[in-house]
Amino acid sequence: MRAVDIIQKKRDGRELSADELVFLVDGYSNGGIPDYQMSAFAMAVLFRGMTPAETAALTLAMAQSGDQVDLSAIGGIKVDKHSTGGVGDKTTLIVAPLVASAGVPVAKMSGRGLGHTGGTIDKLESIAGFRTELSREAFISQVNAIGLSVIGQSGNLAPADKKLYALRDVTATVESIPLIASSVMSKKIAAGADAIVLDVKTGSGAFMKTVLQSEQLAEAMVKIGSEVGRQTAAVISDMDQPLGYAIGNALEVKEAIATLKGEGPADLTKLCLTLGAYMVVLGGQAASFEEAEALLRQKLSSGEALAKFKSFVAAQGGDESVADNPEKLPQAPHTVPVIASESGYVAAIQAEQLGIAAMLLGAGRATKDDAIDHRVGLMLSKKVGDAVQAGDTLAVMHVHALNSSNDEVAAKVKAAYTLQSEAPKLRPLLLSIVTSAGIQRFTEET
Amino acid sequence: MRAVDIIQKKRDGRELSADELVFLVDGYSNGGIPDYQMSAFAMAVLFRGMTPAETAALTLAMAQSGDQVDLSAIGGIKVDKHSTGGVGDKTTLIVAPLVASAGVPVAKMSGRGLGHTGGTIDKLESIAGFRTELSREAFISQVNAIGLSVIGQSGNLAPADKKLYALRDVTATVESIPLIASSVMSKKIAAGADAIVLDVKTGSGAFMKTVLQSEQLAEAMVKIGSEVGRQTAAVISDMDQPLGYAIGNALEVKEAIATLKGEGPADLTKLCLTLGAYMVVLGGQAASFEEAEALLRQKLSSGEALAKFKSFVAAQGGDESVADNPEKLPQAPHTVPVIASESGYVAAIQAEQLGIAAMLLGAGRATKDDAIDHRVGLMLSKKVGDAVQAGDTLAVMHVHALNSSNDEVAAKVKAAYTLQSEAPKLRPLLLSIVTSAGIQRFTEET
Repeated sequence: MRAVDIIQKKRDGRELSADELVFLVDGYSNGGIPDYQMSAFAMAVLFRGMTPAETAALTLAMAQSGDQVDLSAIGGIKVDKHSTGGVGDKTTLIVAPLVASAGVPVAKMSGRGLGHTGGTIDKLESIAGFRTELSREAFISQVNAIGLSVIGQSGNLAPADKKLYALRDVTATVESIPLIASSVMSKKIAAGADAIVLDVKTGSGAFMKTVLQSEQLAEAMVKIGSEVGRQTAAVISDMDQPLGYAIGNALEVKEAIATLKGEGPADLTKLCLTLGAYMVVLGGQAASFEEAEALLRQKLSSGEALAKFKSFVAAQGGDESVADNPEKLPQAPHTVPVIASESGYVAAIQAEQLGIAAMLLGAGRATKDDAIDHRVGLMLSKKVGDAVQAGDTLAVMHVHALNSSNDEVAAKVKAAYTLQSEAPKLRPLLLSIVTSAGIQRFTEET
Repeated sequence: MRAVDIIQKKRDGRELSADELVFLVDGYSNGGIPDYQMSAFAMAVLFRGMTPAETAALTLAMAQSGDQVDLSAIGGIKVDKHSTGGVGDKTTLIVAPLVASAGVPVAKMSGRGLGHTGGTIDKLESIAGFRTELSREAFISQVNAIGLSVIGQSGNLAPADKKLYALRDVTATVESIPLIASSVMSKKIAAGADAIVLDVKTGSGAFMKTVLQSEQLAEAMVKIGSEVGRQTAAVISDMDQPLGYAIGNALEVKEAIATLKGEGPADLTKLCLTLGAYMVVLGGQAASFEEAEALLRQKLSSGEALAKFKSFVAAQGGDESVADNPEKLPQAPHTVPVIASESGYVAAIQAEQLGIAAMLLGAGRATKDDAIDHRVGLMLSKKVGDAVQAGDTLAVMHVHALNSSNDEVAAKVKAAYTLQSEAPKLRPLLLSIVTSAGIQRFTEET
């Protein structure tokens, strides 16, 4: 077998065998196949696409290129959750204890963030004492004991994907549905869960700009799940504006705690209940989505979800009292409001620009060696559809110091808001759900 | 400017500027742009193609990546000739002295062969004493003195093309018309001629298998010529069987000498007159193709073409007496006939297989460090359309020793012949001609 022949076969639109894809991924992993052949292959895939069988074979080969986590010592159906990433996305902090309180074991490995704000691991580290590095044994025994653990992702999970992703980034081969789908799913499969619920963000603040693209990506990932025996469902949700009001690590933990108390923003609560309900269904703890959602609402109102969060924080060495006293989370020494200079309705918020603004305040990393300031970030005061008077506060910046660079960030935040004279038509938060049964589109705000 | 943005622009089907192509080629030449970006770019070009302006810009950038030969010290319109390569193609040995005898200066740099038989330079080195390495000054003064010189190609002619070609070869990005066209033309342009006549081979023994592909390639090259101010014409000729009867270095020189005496094979003579006539027209020595062809026929019959060959050989230190006594060329010690085991008409000859057979006898190189045996090769006895009786000789192998490996080569030669019971319809040798005025197709044997 020769790499050049495999590239040519894909280039000419013929279907590759699993053996050929394994040859390619293994060769690329061990250095026998150079970057320049893999980038030509990726470009050919970008033009020719991949069949579901090819995509699944590529995914499995990448999943098997490094560590494969064995969760079999944990009873029940382990369900993982993954978001394609957005601004102000703190759903894992809420959904993980929420579904654990409903009997679904969650043994989750999460990443740190690069760009924008931190990842789930960075956010959890806002809590004093919280440990994100546990031994494999401690991780598993914690899930068996309290139904939940979230730790930092192993450095050797799907290394072939990591290498390929870095290559795609510099060869204009990122935007390929089968390559994106196999990248996401390879890591989820290597992480060992039995079932997977995906949150596919769509809109100006997300990688996928249109609902159609997002549905195609979701379908590709759900098909991979079917092919490799991991039940998968994907929710397409709006990322035309940030989720909730908080952007920044401790600020997001605070908002997550409020949500677990049933006092969170409507959009964030809705999305968490939806993602959680699919996890409960896949985890075998409810027979229907409606039943699952009702169960989760009851877990929120009874305080069981919040209690699960507290025992989770305590189990990993964190200060669980932050759940009752969120003011104990790290707080920035200063706040600076961003003031509207004109009146109107908020028609759009460029989520990505707000993410960059939060990063500039210190909430995220520009390079992977940067340190994160857990205290800083943005609290939005206005979201899409809200009426604004000149002089109103659009958002509040939580800053580590009062200096002139805040003005630049404030200008960026202000520029991210588009005002118009009439109230805009609101796009629903939940756009569609893709399961192995097909696509279901939400036609109105639900 | 960033390479990734240029790749993406091409991937998305947008036209690149000359500046962007220069940035890419220069960066690739000096190592600033790595192989993996260039191979992704090449694959994007393979799918998206290039406009004539893009192709010309790429060609010029590659032509300017190394030495650019200055032929301005030579009077008249210098015309170069290039063949896309075939088996038994000894046209340069004939056409160069032929058109020089008609007043067109030929200052040609030629390559060595890899695979099959040798290149023009290898063939010329069959002649005792012939020097293919001359100083630039000696080269130019010889052309001014006798109108003709052929030397080995400079190592630093279009090095960006050389690097890109090696990369394309291992990334399944060879088969792109604009990339093939720019590769050929970059070397021709760097070699300094004012006008170029291309011999585009088509058929089973050529890289381009169909007339349509060959015409597309020819059109792309002619358009590059127009864009960069070098008048270019391309002849599409048949390579469904070898050209002439001789395959092997000294054997081909012998056949070339016979052709210069007017005693050559009809197909070879016809092609040389056609290519030569276009060179004479572009060189301004005749007003029409017909006038040019008549002039060249006269140069053959008068002996002037042969005399030019002799002075050319003598000028480069070779033994010119081989022209009158071709038996003084190196001769293999043994000949072994390949005998037909059945009767019929020759319907097809796989030229490429005969090229490989000749290489196995020692006439070509498998790797660039192999030595060539100028004496060995094949003389065909039968060509397409010929009637064969079982027991007839199909071809004669000229071998350096009698041993069992000859049997394997004989089997390969025999397998290259397809016999059928009825006389086949013959395909014309000349299929079409592409100039800046358009495509002219030959509908019958001319």
